[in-house]
Amino acid sequence: MNRSDVNALILEKKRSHGLRWKEVSAQLGASKEWCTAALLGQMPLSAEQARVITQLLDLPEEAERILQEVPSRGCLSTAVPTDPTIYRFYEILQVYGTTIKELIHEEFGDGIMSAIDFSMDISRVKDEHGDRIKITLNGKYLKYKTY
Amino acid sequence: MNRSDVNALILEKKRSHGLRWKEVSAQLGASKEWCTAALLGQMPLSAEQARVITQLLDLPEEAERILQEVPSRGCLSTAVPTDPTIYRFYEILQVYGTTIKELIHEEFGDGIMSAIDFSMDISRVKDEHGDRIKITLNGKYLKYKTY
Amino acid sequence: MNRSDVNALILEKKRSHGLRWKEVSAQLGASKEWCTAALLGQMPLSAEQARVITQLLDLPEEAERILQEVPSRGCLSTAVPTDPTIYRFYEILQVYGTTIKELIHEEFGDGIMSAIDFSMDISRVKDEHGDRIKITLNGKYLKYKTY
Amino acid sequence: MNRSDVNALILEKKRSHGLRWKEVSAQLGASKEWCTAALLGQMPLSAEQARVITQLLDLPEEAERILQEVPSRGCLSTAVPTDPTIYRFYEILQVYGTTIKELIHEEFGDGIMSAIDFSMDISRVKDEHGDRIKITLNGKYLKYKTY
Amino acid sequence: MNRSDVNALILEKKRSHGLRWKEVSAQLGASKEWCTAALLGQMPLSAEQARVITQLLDLPEEAERILQEVPSRGCLSTAVPTDPTIYRFYEILQVYGTTIKELIHEEFGDGIMSAIDFSMDISRVKDEHGDRIKITLNGKYLKYKTY
Amino acid sequence: MNRSDVNALILEKKRSHGLRWKEVSAQLGASKEWCTAALLGQMPLSAEQARVITQLLDLPEEAERILQEVPSRGCLSTAVPTDPTIYRFYEILQVYGTTIKELIHEEFGDGIMSAIDFSMDISRVKDEHGDRIKITLNGKYLKYKTY
Amino acid sequence: MNRSDVNALILEKKRSHGLRWKEVSAQLGASKEWCTAALLGQMPLSAEQARVITQLLDLPEEAERILQEVPSRGCLSTAVPTDPTIYRFYEILQVYGTTIKELIHEEFGDGIMSAIDFSMDISRVKDEHGDRIKITLNGKYLKYKTY
Amino acid sequence: MNRSDVNALILEKKRSHGLRWKEVSAQLGASKEWCTAALLGQMPLSAEQARVITQLLDLPEEAERILQEVPSRGCLSTAVPTDPTIYRFYEILQVYGTTIKELIHEEFGDGIMSAIDFSMDISRVKDEHGDRIKITLNGKYLKYKTY
Amino acid sequence: MNRSDVNALILEKKRSHGLRWKEVSAQLGASKEWCTAALLGQMPLSAEQARVITQLLDLPEEAERILQEVPSRGCLSTAVPTDPTIYRFYEILQVYGTTIKELIHEEFGDGIMSAIDFSMDISRVKDEHGDRIKITLNGKYLKYKTY
Amino acid sequence: MNRSDVNALILEKKRSHGLRWKEVSAQLGASKEWCTAALLGQMPLSAEQARVITQLLDLPEEAERILQEVPSRGCLSTAVPTDPTIYRFYEILQVYGTTIKELIHEEFGDGIMSAIDFSMDISRVKDEHGDRIKITLNGKYLKYKTY
Repeated sequence: MNRSDVNALILEKKRSHGLRWKEVSAQLGASKEWCTAALLGQMPLSAEQARVITQLLDLPEEAERILQEVPSRGCLSTAVPTDPTIYRFYEILQVYGTTIKELIHEEFGDGIMSAIDFSMDISRVKDEHGDRIKITLNGKYLKYKTY
Repeated sequence: MNRSDVNALILEKKRSHGLRWKEVSAQLGASKEWCTAALLGQMPLSAEQARVITQLLDLPEEAERILQEVPSRGCLSTAVPTDPTIYRFYEILQVYGTTIKELIHEEFGDGIMSAIDFSMDISRVKDEHGDRIKITLNGKYLKYKTY
Repeated sequence: MNRSDVNALILEKKRSHGLRWKEVSAQLGASKEWCTAALLGQMPLSAEQARVITQLLDLPEEAERILQEVPSRGCLSTAVPTDPTIYRFYEILQVYGTTIKELIHEEFGDGIMSAIDFSMDISRVKDEHGDRIKITLNGKYLKYKTY
Repeated sequence: MNRSDVNALILEKKRSHGLRWKEVSAQLGASKEWCTAALLGQMPLSAEQARVITQLLDLPEEAERILQEVPSRGCLSTAVPTDPTIYRFYEILQVYGTTIKELIHEEFGDGIMSAIDFSMDISRVKDEHGDRIKITLNGKYLKYKTY
Repeated sequence: MNRSDVNALILEKKRSHGLRWKEVSAQLGASKEWCTAALLGQMPLSAEQARVITQLLDLPEEAERILQEVPSRGCLSTAVPTDPTIYRFYEILQVYGTTIKELIHEEFGDGIMSAIDFSMDISRVKDEHGDRIKITLNGKYLKYKTY
Repeated sequence: MNRSDVNALILEKKRSHGLRWKEVSAQLGASKEWCTAALLGQMPLSAEQARVITQLLDLPEEAERILQEVPSRGCLSTAVPTDPTIYRFYEILQVYGTTIKELIHEEFGDGIMSAIDFSMDISRVKDEHGDRIKITLNGKYLKYKTY
Repeated sequence: MNRSDVNALILEKKRSHGLRWKEVSAQLGASKEWCTAALLGQMPLSAEQARVITQLLDLPEEAERILQEVPSRGCLSTAVPTDPTIYRFYEILQVYGTTIKELIHEEFGDGIMSAIDFSMDISRVKDEHGDRIKITLNGKYLKYKTY
Repeated sequence: MNRSDVNALILEKKRSHGLRWKEVSAQLGASKEWCTAALLGQMPLSAEQARVITQLLDLPEEAERILQEVPSRGCLSTAVPTDPTIYRFYEILQVYGTTIKELIHEEFGDGIMSAIDFSMDISRVKDEHGDRIKITLNGKYLKYKTY
Repeated sequence: MNRSDVNALILEKKRSHGLRWKEVSAQLGASKEWCTAALLGQMPLSAEQARVITQLLDLPEEAERILQEVPSRGCLSTAVPTDPTIYRFYEILQVYGTTIKELIHEEFGDGIMSAIDFSMDISRVKDEHGDRIKITLNGKYLKYKTY
Repeated sequence: MNRSDVNALILEKKRSHGLRWKEVSAQLGASKEWCTAALLGQMPLSAEQARVITQLLDLPEEAERILQEVPSRGCLSTAVPTDPTIYRFYEILQVYGTTIKELIHEEFGDGIMSAIDFSMDISRVKDEHGDRIKITLNGKYLKYKTY
């Protein structure tokens, strides 16, 4: 049994228990964004979180240990994603990639937005012309070091 | 002369005039995010905006016409970006791509966040442990049609 | 059991029951184009549709739940399709891609044809020199937003 | 001077003459879809059409000869297009590729839709919820030969 | 069981029965080229042919139905083939691709050689300096349509 | 000046002189297939042939020397060709690649068809349902050596 | 059971029998280079060789037949090999590829070194500064045919 | 002027001076294999060699300095070479790559053949059935270090 | 059972025994860096090391033999790694690749740093602004041979 | 003039002035590793550094401004480097990538080594069996944030 088997099992159990990501996340005591990523195989759980999820979803004991290990990250099976919901974010990178770079450098200087000291929030914005999705990326500015 | 020549010229003129994107954007009457993308070759300008930028940066007359045409979009020269500042956003896609998909579907149903009826905001968040970059993506939820 | 297993099972059952896509689609109450895409793993079914197809094809109970989930879309196993029937449409993109772009922009302005608020129709056109295939793509025009 | 030079020149002249594809096409006596493709470098012109366009756009004499040669076709600079307006059609292929294949085979038997004995029509459909783009692909059904 | 399983089974049974492609083809009433392609998974069999091959090779009943379905075509596992016997034909394309294009256009005008209304013949040519392989490709000329 | 410059020049001169490949080939004393390949940059000319073509097309003296050098072969700018006339031959490889391999091995044993001791012939076959293109590939059978 | 299964079985049996490639090759009556390639799945065995190896390694009866079939060649799982021992030969191609081409053409004229009528020898060269590996490639010169 | 310009110039001058690689190499006091690689841009020359070649081929003074710099190595413009003369060596890697690895490890243990402390020799072997090309690769065995 | 199966088994057993790489390495009598690489499938073990690890982790007897064979090296499943922890090292190569080359050549002359006669050390550097990771690469300088 | 032009100019001027990277770096007041990377186009210079280098190498005034802008990073022209000196570091990643990941996680927990708050040192280690190259990578440990 490896992490990939555990990921598949989590999806099956979540489905058969009729649970939603928000409900599962509430049990783990962290944001829905982080928890969903973790349960999709992108983040390690703490010992406590692993115990909780194992009980909640009736996972085998070995899963509890596996979930605490740092996974090999990367959820796209091709360099350019094929699923339209995911592709739109790749498209934003194609349209705005150099813009983001220019504006970060103009405001902060030479550096990057961390993808490690980072959080994300996905929420609904009510709008009479059709609701909108708002995704906030929040990462620490890291300055390139001169030495 | 084509759009790519105009883009290079804009960068040269902006540099020699010592202008910042925010200053240029202020002249165009739109957000710094949209204007920078436009001047990097990803958006067409309105007739008025083209006139303004041509004067501001001493561009040749032909540039004014070219800037009003819809460009061929795509700013990455490789499928996976090599520049670290831009790569971090590809990395976020590798780590959170399936998470974003799951949470959009859970909250909204089967659909996507539009990358067309879309806006972006990049701002600084003051933080005593080091300032943070906040990027907000705001796109209309588009529902998959059943027919 | 995951969506991919269900897709394979549907193909087996459809074959052993001697059913055609049009017949199956008629049971689901939607167009043959949408239903075939759904049963090939590209669209989620409604609860009612999932119930109908599960009974029609003697699928296991778990399949009924799986079919209601939004699938990870993308049906091509290589970026450029190898099957000639499918390749011709990629070829049309190679020959007419920039033409479609130019004519959409000339007629509508800067924007795209939605692939989400979208429908497709495939039909036969009688012709004495050999019947023709007519495929109609119908998508909402989405205007690029300036902000 | 080669076809690629001529294509660039046509775009420049069309811009400086303030012409639209529809106007240019009207002069050539063929549909706007075919003519635009031809002038973007994907189709050869007849001797008469080459003469007309050379005069209309003040092209050099050599261009008239070059335009009558069959070009090397292919307008995408990457296997997967990056421009969103064009990408949507690649996306339709990712979502509906196998569906189109199945339905052509169910209706016609083993064969393909020709991309050679083929025509395309792009038009506007008025709609109160927002106008729609209708693209009709019309190709001869070609049956796979058994021998 | 899917087509790929049937293909593997056919190879196993052909081997254990000690049959040659020519012998198998003779039973199916078609050329050795078409039949071999069909039994390698690239062509659908007629109902009669499927019955014959199922009996000849002791295939399971389900295989008989599967063999009548149009397969997903494409027999190369990489875009550029690695097997030297197959690679030589890719090499011919690298050396003569543009030549074939030029000569078809010079002789026929703008169009292609059909790969659908197509037949192939592979035969031995006795030669005292070493026998030669002669492969004849025979496809209908299809003229590009102007509309 | 390199071979690539010479290739471009040959195409320009052939066009301005209003010559056809067959006419040019007749001057060179070899088949139209070999000569066209040579003049498209895939074969070296003999000293005599280089002299002839240089005079016929008014090429500069340096070209005469360059044309006698063995070129770097390969005429496709992408691994999978995008031009439909050329693509069809790649498609034939996708559909018949393993078939060709099996039938060569069945008839000749373990070996290949040479692409070096090789000739090709492209000709028209009159046919009342539409003329056909016949391409004959003729290569020496080369047996794999055991040692 | 296919060739790939047989290859894996041969490796397992060779290991459990504690045999070396040289010992196995001695039994087959051919060079260690050819035999190793054959047993790694790149060459077909003669009937006699297949009988010998089947007995030597206790392979199942079906393996004896499979080993006599011409395999699908190609032992690299990526276009550029990742294993350092193998990569060095790819590197030699990157550094000396054009050199080999130039020197073959200068010495022999327009042609290639056959990889079919070919043999290879790998041997140790004693050297006080550290032993050296000598690999001799020996292939028939094949002249490009003009026709 | 950079190394790539110098490489092109060397080819032009070698042609116009009617020199062969062997002749040029004789002047440089090193093997024809090493010298050809160097003059094709894959090796740096010594100060003395750079002086010699600059005089021999009438190169500009700057070239003399450039030729002494270590170049960026790599002579293939695609990962898989398209030129048949070069491709055969890639093919040998596809057929014998794992064999070479196995036999080096069996004879020497865990290590590689150096491509740095390496020499190559290309020579003609007279043979009544057609002359053969013999290429000897000679590299130091480098043992993997355990630490 | 092959090396890949053994690798997976080692990971499972290490987890269930609650062992750390450092502890396992201590048993093998080599550095943690080399041992971890070996147990992840990139290095062969000595007979003694294989015996130790087999006992320590309760591996099957066959594993002991497999672990002594030289593995096929390469641990990345894509050319560009997706896991952020690993990617940073690819990024360093993108930013500093040419710098490393220039400085090695300036200091040592034309040559490389061996990746075979090589060792690596990973350690923690205490730092009040946050601890740092120090990775030392130590490889023998190998000089390019002129011959 | 853009950064790429400036990079080429710096290399030319450095060559004609007969300067070494260490000498140039000494003028800029930073390490040879950082300065070389900067002058190869991977880092922006401070205003003072840009002034110094412009004078030292007689660069045009525009270069001084360009060198202060943050460049688009990435120095490899292919995803897998072809130059052997650079490739060895890619190879280290193929052999040790997963090892580095495991040991960082074991020692530090879930996180990465920063490639931004990062320094590198390249030095010579005297060794009687041949000098060695020591490269030290030193980056801040960045912990993955849970939120």
